[in-house]
Amino acid sequence: MMRQAIHELSIATRGRGFYEFTELVAEQVRVARITTGLVTLHLRHTSASLLIQENADPEVRRDLERFFGRLVPDGDPLFQHTAEGDDDMPAHVRTALTCVNLSIPVVRGILALGTWQGIYLWEHRTHPHRRSVIVHTLGE
Amino acid sequence: MMRQAIHELSIATRGRGFYEFTELVAEQVRVARITTGLVTLHLRHTSASLLIQENADPEVRRDLERFFGRLVPDGDPLFQHTAEGDDDMPAHVRTALTCVNLSIPVVRGILALGTWQGIYLWEHRTHPHRRSVIVHTLGE
Amino acid sequence: MMRQAIHELSIATRGRGFYEFTELVAEQVRVARITTGLVTLHLRHTSASLLIQENADPEVRRDLERFFGRLVPDGDPLFQHTAEGDDDMPAHVRTALTCVNLSIPVVRGILALGTWQGIYLWEHRTHPHRRSVIVHTLGE
Repeated sequence: MMRQAIHELSIATRGRGFYEFTELVAEQVRVARITTGLVTLHLRHTSASLLIQENADPEVRRDLERFFGRLVPDGDPLFQHTAEGDDDMPAHVRTALTCVNLSIPVVRGILALGTWQGIYLWEHRTHPHRRSVIVHTLGE
Repeated sequence: MMRQAIHELSIATRGRGFYEFTELVAEQVRVARITTGLVTLHLRHTSASLLIQENADPEVRRDLERFFGRLVPDGDPLFQHTAEGDDDMPAHVRTALTCVNLSIPVVRGILALGTWQGIYLWEHRTHPHRRSVIVHTLGE
Repeated sequence: MMRQAIHELSIATRGRGFYEFTELVAEQVRVARITTGLVTLHLRHTSASLLIQENADPEVRRDLERFFGRLVPDGDPLFQHTAEGDDDMPAHVRTALTCVNLSIPVVRGILALGTWQGIYLWEHRTHPHRRSVIVHTLGE
């Protein structure tokens, strides 16, 4: 019979960068004892993102950081919303350019990710933050 | 027992900009009487987006507009698809750079949004449009 | 009664560009005999995207390709991850700027897409690839 569960993950960041938490999501699938189903993640912030990206060469994430740093530079004089710091409005723009939701099917009890896919929280602020991710598991 | 409902929202825009409709989604959760579940939104257009963004300082949305206006300028000579106006192809690009789907868990009868998160329709065309958003609620 | 199904689609690409597969998704909805529900798509790769875009004028997709080609140029000296080719890191960036998940409600047995919306796999690599998309259907 179809059932669901909700769990809140709390992820501590040490400033801008990628924080993989694939295993924390996989654990929720095991705890919910779902064989076939769907996992939905929602990040409750507007200055960080959820991203599925390559989990092999860490240089890929560094290049993503370099690209976004050039595309949306901190302290860009275009921005008026500057009271919360030079990196705040760039963080909102980076979030708009990416996603705060992910939906991943569960097949034979396992997240249906590709071989090279990892689930990351992408922190866009330069200072450390504590981030909340809601995990909704559904299935049977 | 798990149940679902579908509702279509119609949102009138007055041209380019952000239109918050968090309360309209929250109302559908109340009407469906869901305590734990998942709400999925789908925008049925290719020149506007659905975005979760900061609902506090309106300058954040103005800065997002400034950034996207610089990144994807109207009338860019790069574009060949110009028959529907200078703002049409930029609107398609802005949609590709953002999202037309959102998935938000429901916890204790309430959308699990963060304190500063609002749900917006982001109109990318300069003229007013009527936009259709399908709301799928699922839960128990 | 609520039920679900999982199906894997395999899509062969002939290099960079858009490959519509709306009809393959619609077929899964018919096979699952769902009247009201939700379809979730997950692409199992990090160098291609899933995109809902205009299915009318093909010039729209060519302009999207032109824009992304200018925004994230192949062989950009910014990138350090170059071992897999000049187009590999740009492909990862394009994927980060778009999505690998889509969620589309089903209404009266039909995908609730807008008149001009098609579902595309957007291949970002220049060489042909075989891409896997997981289709999760849920409903009654």
